[in-house]
Amino acid sequence: MSNVGSPFHSLSNQELREQYLAAGFAGRVEWGRRPAVLVIDMAGAWTTPGEQLGSDLGGVVGQITRILDVARQRGGVPIDFTTMAYDPDLKEIGTVVRRKTPHTELMVRGSDRVGLIPVLERRPNEPLIEKPRASAFFGTNLLSMLISERVDTTIIVGCSTSGCIRSTVESAFNNNLHAIIPASAVGDRSWSAHEAALFDIDARFGDVMPVDEVLAHLREPAGAPSEQGSRP
Amino acid sequence: MSNVGSPFHSLSNQELREQYLAAGFAGRVEWGRRPAVLVIDMAGAWTTPGEQLGSDLGGVVGQITRILDVARQRGGVPIDFTTMAYDPDLKEIGTVVRRKTPHTELMVRGSDRVGLIPVLERRPNEPLIEKPRASAFFGTNLLSMLISERVDTTIIVGCSTSGCIRSTVESAFNNNLHAIIPASAVGDRSWSAHEAALFDIDARFGDVMPVDEVLAHLREPAGAPSEQGSRP
Amino acid sequence: MSNVGSPFHSLSNQELREQYLAAGFAGRVEWGRRPAVLVIDMAGAWTTPGEQLGSDLGGVVGQITRILDVARQRGGVPIDFTTMAYDPDLKEIGTVVRRKTPHTELMVRGSDRVGLIPVLERRPNEPLIEKPRASAFFGTNLLSMLISERVDTTIIVGCSTSGCIRSTVESAFNNNLHAIIPASAVGDRSWSAHEAALFDIDARFGDVMPVDEVLAHLREPAGAPSEQGSRP
Amino acid sequence: MSNVGSPFHSLSNQELREQYLAAGFAGRVEWGRRPAVLVIDMAGAWTTPGEQLGSDLGGVVGQITRILDVARQRGGVPIDFTTMAYDPDLKEIGTVVRRKTPHTELMVRGSDRVGLIPVLERRPNEPLIEKPRASAFFGTNLLSMLISERVDTTIIVGCSTSGCIRSTVESAFNNNLHAIIPASAVGDRSWSAHEAALFDIDARFGDVMPVDEVLAHLREPAGAPSEQGSRP
Repeated sequence: MSNVGSPFHSLSNQELREQYLAAGFAGRVEWGRRPAVLVIDMAGAWTTPGEQLGSDLGGVVGQITRILDVARQRGGVPIDFTTMAYDPDLKEIGTVVRRKTPHTELMVRGSDRVGLIPVLERRPNEPLIEKPRASAFFGTNLLSMLISERVDTTIIVGCSTSGCIRSTVESAFNNNLHAIIPASAVGDRSWSAHEAALFDIDARFGDVMPVDEVLAHLREPAGAPSEQGSRP
Repeated sequence: MSNVGSPFHSLSNQELREQYLAAGFAGRVEWGRRPAVLVIDMAGAWTTPGEQLGSDLGGVVGQITRILDVARQRGGVPIDFTTMAYDPDLKEIGTVVRRKTPHTELMVRGSDRVGLIPVLERRPNEPLIEKPRASAFFGTNLLSMLISERVDTTIIVGCSTSGCIRSTVESAFNNNLHAIIPASAVGDRSWSAHEAALFDIDARFGDVMPVDEVLAHLREPAGAPSEQGSRP
Repeated sequence: MSNVGSPFHSLSNQELREQYLAAGFAGRVEWGRRPAVLVIDMAGAWTTPGEQLGSDLGGVVGQITRILDVARQRGGVPIDFTTMAYDPDLKEIGTVVRRKTPHTELMVRGSDRVGLIPVLERRPNEPLIEKPRASAFFGTNLLSMLISERVDTTIIVGCSTSGCIRSTVESAFNNNLHAIIPASAVGDRSWSAHEAALFDIDARFGDVMPVDEVLAHLREPAGAPSEQGSRP
Repeated sequence: MSNVGSPFHSLSNQELREQYLAAGFAGRVEWGRRPAVLVIDMAGAWTTPGEQLGSDLGGVVGQITRILDVARQRGGVPIDFTTMAYDPDLKEIGTVVRRKTPHTELMVRGSDRVGLIPVLERRPNEPLIEKPRASAFFGTNLLSMLISERVDTTIIVGCSTSGCIRSTVESAFNNNLHAIIPASAVGDRSWSAHEAALFDIDARFGDVMPVDEVLAHLREPAGAPSEQGSRP
């Protein structure tokens, strides 16, 4: 069996995008007026190559750091981190989730696996959210926090592109939050899954763009023209 | 660019499954004790080949009909249908959703595009849910309805595999509902997107299986041994 | 029936407010920057005195009309209406809800009971949301619509103060939306339940104020000083 | 302070109940088939008389202990505890919630205020849920946990009757979960608010009954006749 499963195995990216555009997908959500940065699951279980879910995300860490630096310098850009964690008894996971994804059993609250990597230097005013599922919005207080900050745009970074990133971007979209995904600031243990997910995310939920474009936007003065005009 | 984006372009299905199993994915959720059938978006916009989102789903319709026949004969199996529909003014869609997926603008309440195909013969006690997003659970009363019926298992059929089916299965999983996806009773305008989504769904959220296996289960007497034992 | 149910019938308002303030309740949420008007359940079932749930809400209708007039004149203030409605089969209500509140069985989609009263003159760009429960946010797309409009403040009017108004205000609060309740633009079949609910709402969830204060705010130019400064 | 705030201080209970019944409220949800016990906010901030939110809940603690004893002896009855807790920076509360209810600023994660009282002897397989709002269902994973356990009935105990108990019971009702409230196992800093809330809860959301009736039900063998028949 070859190629089965690729959404564009014999098509160029450009051709495929045109197919999606013709079907009424892949429009641009553009930037809203007030961005936040969501850093998804940059914790030991995912960033340590020897771990069951782990892989080498060094390049991704570097890109996230660049974005955090600029966001912190600009000021007024809320930053939220997530991890996944359950009590040692694991009862709060639930039968279905535990059977389908037994790796959840490793995510014990307080362990190194669920601790953020120190290099991101989380600040006290940057909340850390323990999420029970792939989407950062499911079973958490995140949406209420973003509403409180008048955030309308979420810059979503971290891992894994095909899992928690995809699910979080879909939730942002469902809630009419602009989602921006800096391509090299999200990572996955599988390169092909990463590529397929980025294409799918861009077609359905949020705008995938280069990290440099995100940085350029964050460096613009607040209220600049590019932040206007968020009506259809 | 060829093959980029396929999660298994150079791997056999079996090899890839083993990779996922090693990473703690792709377990079996198995059947719970009380199933319902969710029929997703079998309406004109998706089932009419000339439509922007449409494709020939004749084979899928036939498989869904087989499942509905057996479920209705057995009795006690709740059946729920969904479609997508917005007021003509379209304001309820929201800016982000409308920009990224402009095909939503065609889904006008009361039009043929959003009407169920008559061949499925919806009965008065089979609710029709107007969902505003891909997942049948987002912005609807579906979860409360399923809880009321003590449903713990959702047999999910309809279209599109890579869109509304995938999102609905993820929501079922998030809520610890067993999700069963009869492979030939879900369809997509793209065969490769269909195949990729089925693999992903099976690895992350629910059990993909042949229609015949679903029918065999529905024909078993309620309370039979195979319905027992839903604990990890 | 007078005063029955008032939480402050023998305490002065001032004394009781001081008790609540001492316990860390009853702060002011103040106005945010961008208001919307939510008109709750102004439909036949509630506004027709002969109906099971009905009472004379003529005074309330007059106050709502004043608010809608000013909001429509100002422009840029989203207005959303709600009603409750179920399919004739009533299966979508669910066992628990139907048993505890059998009046839900009267709310049949398409009937006069669930139709908005014409005097409010709903416009095409003012969505009508069918909500399945007391809160306008439960099982609906309302929150996503408000986020899309960058609304941070909900002016909540309609009925019943002790039921759907209270629940809707609590949901707004949970989501960190400023809730403003113009006292004489909400009504209830019981005066004492109305009074008790207003006090409770003001202590826990939103700011109750005179209609004239709401009108004055809506007449201010957008971006005026009173709209600033929504941080603790 | 006696009777202040009671909705029935001058009407007999019976008269008022008849008014509610005539309006299609106050039906009985009855027991479902599989109960769980939710113990709400039995932590230092609420149970210590000197605290801002505190009061003497000694009697309530005794009743909760009786229920936990019987539920643990029976086995197979999930027990879940809640508390409220925020990071020291308090940013996750949000502007609106913090302004209206500044007592939230005291609920610092890890402090005695948010720690459960030891006398309830929480077991490792009895999850402790940190909830951000009054309802135990808002921004938490609780509903998914209950679905996983096939729970259809929630016995809700703890404090405060007029706050977190009321909100949690409403959420259970919204999700078609049977809610049972043992009257003397819930408490409030105000007796009159307690009485008014119990009446309101019973009219709108769940069945209020004596603790002894709850204990008798929990002592029945599972699958006994009284657990049958949960259809309208």
